Amino acid sequence: MQRKGTWLTYREDVRVVDCTIRDGGLINNFHFNDDLVKAVYDALEAAGVDYMEVGYKAAKDMFKVNDFGKAKFCDENFLRDIIGDREKKVKISVMADVGRTNYKEDILKREDSVIDMIRVAAYIHQIPAAIDIIKDAKDKGYEATINLMSVSTVKEHELDEALEVLGKTDVDIIYLVDSFGSLYSEDVEKLMKKYIAIAEANNKKIGVHCHNNQQLAYANTLEAMMMGASYLDATLSGMGRGAGNCPLELLMGFLKNPKYNLRPIVKCLDEQIAPLRSKMKWGPDLQYQLTGQFNVHPRPAIEHVESEDANKSYLDFYDKFVNENL
Amino acid sequence: MQRKGTWLTYREDVRVVDCTIRDGGLINNFHFNDDLVKAVYDALEAAGVDYMEVGYKAAKDMFKVNDFGKAKFCDENFLRDIIGDREKKVKISVMADVGRTNYKEDILKREDSVIDMIRVAAYIHQIPAAIDIIKDAKDKGYEATINLMSVSTVKEHELDEALEVLGKTDVDIIYLVDSFGSLYSEDVEKLMKKYIAIAEANNKKIGVHCHNNQQLAYANTLEAMMMGASYLDATLSGMGRGAGNCPLELLMGFLKNPKYNLRPIVKCLDEQIAPLRSKMKWGPDLQYQLTGQFNVHPRPAIEHVESEDANKSYLDFYDKFVNENL
Repeated sequence: MQRKGTWLTYREDVRVVDCTIRDGGLINNFHFNDDLVKAVYDALEAAGVDYMEVGYKAAKDMFKVNDFGKAKFCDENFLRDIIGDREKKVKISVMADVGRTNYKEDILKREDSVIDMIRVAAYIHQIPAAIDIIKDAKDKGYEATINLMSVSTVKEHELDEALEVLGKTDVDIIYLVDSFGSLYSEDVEKLMKKYIAIAEANNKKIGVHCHNNQQLAYANTLEAMMMGASYLDATLSGMGRGAGNCPLELLMGFLKNPKYNLRPIVKCLDEQIAPLRSKMKWGPDLQYQLTGQFNVHPRPAIEHVESEDANKSYLDFYDKFVNENL
Repeated sequence: MQRKGTWLTYREDVRVVDCTIRDGGLINNFHFNDDLVKAVYDALEAAGVDYMEVGYKAAKDMFKVNDFGKAKFCDENFLRDIIGDREKKVKISVMADVGRTNYKEDILKREDSVIDMIRVAAYIHQIPAAIDIIKDAKDKGYEATINLMSVSTVKEHELDEALEVLGKTDVDIIYLVDSFGSLYSEDVEKLMKKYIAIAEANNKKIGVHCHNNQQLAYANTLEAMMMGASYLDATLSGMGRGAGNCPLELLMGFLKNPKYNLRPIVKCLDEQIAPLRSKMKWGPDLQYQLTGQFNVHPRPAIEHVESEDANKSYLDFYDKFVNENL
């Protein structure tokens, strides 16, 4: 397969999607203060990042509003307050989880909203429901993505069928999502061939969203890009649940398009993200390596990392986890 | 190019070379206590690791012996004490830096030593001197490698010539070394084609030694392996100067040969390596990302990371470094 682009030029179709608050919010139930969210938006704008995914459109009749920060629900007022009076240069994305969103009511028409893109996260068995959300989003005027989760656990013939079905919808972007951080470059290459074939046949774009369990999130993001993915997800300092995501600063340092500028990202790391390290835990560690290499959900690793047990050890986790998963 | 092996089988020719003490010693001038070095050896033995690189054969008339720990010089007594009375299962490697070693005197005949492998580290202009050390090592009965450093800064026609020359020597293994952590998978692929062509024409093996400036050490090690490298360098918790190396635990968790066992490595991380984190600094960070992406020596990044200045920031480093390097 022909690689798209070279390491020295850049592709005009590449878009950087920052998910810092959305994926980071999974660590702290979105309890970020508004100033931090605004500072992230400011940094992304100055850096030329294309999209900021602020959070979820979660159903307020399914989640206790007081248990979560504003980014869990992304009310219009909250989003407008982030942008303020200025011209919006960074597009706004929100995620809708199949089964956890009242999209018909809670997502306004695009002309009445500052949101630009609705990203629909779904497991493969939820595709019919996802298609309904996509249709709703497209009818309302949004860009729409399908983020097909945990692809590393999906049977190949089912994935082929899913991609065929998704290719026939109005969705704009189909995401390759490495939910468990278990994919190797060869997996990314093989999967991207499938995704790109569907995209090229149906005039869609491909995105990539990686987790960093094996310190491969950045490598796999680059690999997917070289295979033709154009929407690249990343987060400041890799902030995100468990092992976290592709670090935005690595990606921005790599990309050659002169519209991107790393310096505002570096400043934001100093001022906003570094101080969070004392309150929130994320990033590659042995426990996440194991769940990634075993291709399972990071849940037990997160529990171990967040446990307050002063005597906990890598070996405790290893023995328990391997025993339960072999 | 045909990939060597698949992701599910394993290649009998793969060898894991642990460099924890040798590369980690660059952080603390080799001031490890003997018990720690022995515990690492024990763990590597239990884990089935093939080689332990203990340190350097540095010239005692060039370095003040009292300024360094024993692994800087690797006297025979020190090495024998690590292994003790048992049968040696993990082969012992030492590194000789061109211009910093009295190899003719300080390296005994192999029959009088517990050392198995002499690794010669050289910049490209030092190849004639390196060849003399290789010849000396081979004449004395050792396995010998050439670790051609900073290949990311070497002109392509010079590299081609260097590989041709090295192919004609008695060296057993030629190492692809990413000294600055600046290589991307595509670079590894292109370089490996050159290295493998020389290896196949001259009956040699290829090794790979990566640094983790861009969180690509593990990814690039796997990439090199898939392209045919068989000697894979790694260190416990990635310990090594600056951004460190390919983490041994990630590599051991990936390799499928049943002779390898991850559990003793995990135990050693708990007992020996985790406690060092309060005394020694290493691992990927923004400063090392920048030196890697600029393809320069990590020296300024190390100085910044080790500085005691309470007000230091990423942005300070970014501004100074970019200003000096653009």
